[in-house]
Amino acid sequence: MLLNQKLQNTPPSGIRRIGQLAKQRPGCIALSIGEPDLDAPLSVRQQIAAAISGGDTHYPPNAGIPGLRSAVANAVNARFRSDYAETETVITIGSTEALASAVFAILNPGDEVIVPVPTFGLYQPQIEMAGGMYIPLDTSADDYQITEDALNRVLSPKSKAILYASPNNPTGTILTSASLDVIKKAALEHDLFIIADSVYDQLLYTETYKSLAGDLSVRDRLIYVNAFSKTYAMTGVRIGYALADAPIMAEMIKAHSFLVVSAPGFIQSGCQSIFSVSNADDVSTYRQRRDCVCAALDRMNLRYPAPDGAFYIFPDITPFGIPDETFCIRLINEEGLALVPSSCFGVPGHVRISFCYETGTLIEGMQRLERFVKRLHQA
Amino acid sequence: MLLNQKLQNTPPSGIRRIGQLAKQRPGCIALSIGEPDLDAPLSVRQQIAAAISGGDTHYPPNAGIPGLRSAVANAVNARFRSDYAETETVITIGSTEALASAVFAILNPGDEVIVPVPTFGLYQPQIEMAGGMYIPLDTSADDYQITEDALNRVLSPKSKAILYASPNNPTGTILTSASLDVIKKAALEHDLFIIADSVYDQLLYTETYKSLAGDLSVRDRLIYVNAFSKTYAMTGVRIGYALADAPIMAEMIKAHSFLVVSAPGFIQSGCQSIFSVSNADDVSTYRQRRDCVCAALDRMNLRYPAPDGAFYIFPDITPFGIPDETFCIRLINEEGLALVPSSCFGVPGHVRISFCYETGTLIEGMQRLERFVKRLHQA
Repeated sequence: MLLNQKLQNTPPSGIRRIGQLAKQRPGCIALSIGEPDLDAPLSVRQQIAAAISGGDTHYPPNAGIPGLRSAVANAVNARFRSDYAETETVITIGSTEALASAVFAILNPGDEVIVPVPTFGLYQPQIEMAGGMYIPLDTSADDYQITEDALNRVLSPKSKAILYASPNNPTGTILTSASLDVIKKAALEHDLFIIADSVYDQLLYTETYKSLAGDLSVRDRLIYVNAFSKTYAMTGVRIGYALADAPIMAEMIKAHSFLVVSAPGFIQSGCQSIFSVSNADDVSTYRQRRDCVCAALDRMNLRYPAPDGAFYIFPDITPFGIPDETFCIRLINEEGLALVPSSCFGVPGHVRISFCYETGTLIEGMQRLERFVKRLHQA
Repeated sequence: MLLNQKLQNTPPSGIRRIGQLAKQRPGCIALSIGEPDLDAPLSVRQQIAAAISGGDTHYPPNAGIPGLRSAVANAVNARFRSDYAETETVITIGSTEALASAVFAILNPGDEVIVPVPTFGLYQPQIEMAGGMYIPLDTSADDYQITEDALNRVLSPKSKAILYASPNNPTGTILTSASLDVIKKAALEHDLFIIADSVYDQLLYTETYKSLAGDLSVRDRLIYVNAFSKTYAMTGVRIGYALADAPIMAEMIKAHSFLVVSAPGFIQSGCQSIFSVSNADDVSTYRQRRDCVCAALDRMNLRYPAPDGAFYIFPDITPFGIPDETFCIRLINEEGLALVPSSCFGVPGHVRISFCYETGTLIEGMQRLERFVKRLHQA
């Protein structure tokens, strides 16, 4: 029987394929998963537990409980000097469902969404499920920033939105003010929506992060997406959120209610004071791990874009002259180290290292990479 | 800026509109919401609380944790003598997201999905979001059952699936073996998928319920959808599930992972032994309430289809010669009772009474309805 052809042609996640290969190799170290290994805040976990124990099991409002929606609006407004109302927020099943609701809210059949690559593999299938066309914009020649020339090459009369992540997965790159200006100018000139996947924007290692949230000139077209998942090491709790101008948010809330009805009410109750929890210790831990991996890569003379946020490093392996898939499969087989090939993110010639692992594991992993790289140099 | 036109043209829920009118009328009794007022099982709530307290905050597998997936397969197989493997299940965000994943898994642009009406308002927007066409099949002339003649009138070369709920919302009707045979025959002859929304199939007041789950002749085309929401009075916990033949399930799991990644892991952990919890006391409570409302409607000489499952009764108001919307608005204004007009479910001439309210409230509500109906008779 004929299933959804577009979905069927979407290959399963390359990250998972690498994970399976790694499992088959005894003793393999996997630095391939983008999930915090740290603990979610105890106070939040206790408040969620208290809410479910206390019987908070009935339908919350579709868009979220007022206490959490206002907390989200207040926190984002305080951070970016924006002016979102509580009604311009929605509480979602992680950032994933926020992004799904965003593309369903804005896309009509055939609309094009420009996505800077390398990028996370989720956006393309989501855009296609919403009837849109995924238009990759290769940023690798521009230090993973957005230039007017590069953007002009992919703009078309069908362009409807630009969707980017800053900090980015897999590069850890932060979009500069210049890049954001290019996006803003194009959005205003061509009447485009802007979807800012900001899920890593509280895992920062520099002071240079800028967001378009709070920029009044794009308020009518910006969808800001975030989640508690990466910031607070609670990916499996599945709570995200989005903020957007009222007319956009009205359609996002509709899409959200048709996809999932609402996020679980008791989890929302338990998260109402989450913004008062600092994740500074986690960031400090990640920073040390990042520095450890960078030092190892520097010893190997591997080049990589500045990992200013998130928990990924994206070294260039083109000097070795072998495809990134081959590099990663050989690295598993020959040294017992799993990294993710860059073709999973839409560009060749790199590998993604996740550093959300303990330092001991990272050091051992980098030793394995170094042995492999030395052998490739000698070959 | 142009948003999703199809979504924008989808009106907000009529049930919510009625609820807002009811709120504006002091002292109004609302029998308009389809949500259990009972408590979710304490043991399940405690196990969910223990899981989150214990730190179960990391990504579960996309399709669900093995313990809950196997519990789902075992429970459904035991009940219907089916033979689903654990891998032919998916744990979702309520039945809503299971249904969304189902339509995304099977529909290509323009595919038609036949939906018996009256029906719940969710299916049409979901089918349209997945690029399909919603084709209503009016069952009101056939006692809310499916006849070959009626089905033949809506079948077309573009027919791709039949999506039904049994027990049904808003009628409480259970599809007979004859109806299921008609569906099965058409599905086999026209190569259609069958989506069985079974979310009320553990709230039954007769022994006559039949399901196509376990019928090997449609195993390759059936998607069985259910949830803990109605059965265990935990709508706000948002856990549903679906079972389907492996090739269908593979695409459903993909759609599910692109929409939400996964259901929260700790809730899944806490639900692993839910199938050992009996909801017999809840069913007994609902049965008493149902009998109370039926007795009142009988006194008023109002006709209604047999409410054999779920917690709705759907009396016929055509004898009064006023539109169902007008009937409901006047009933709120003149007597302070909120019911849902049948036009919210795709047919005229009826109102939906929810009986998931305390008996005292139901008795008072029925007294108000009786006064109103008497006055209409006298007018």
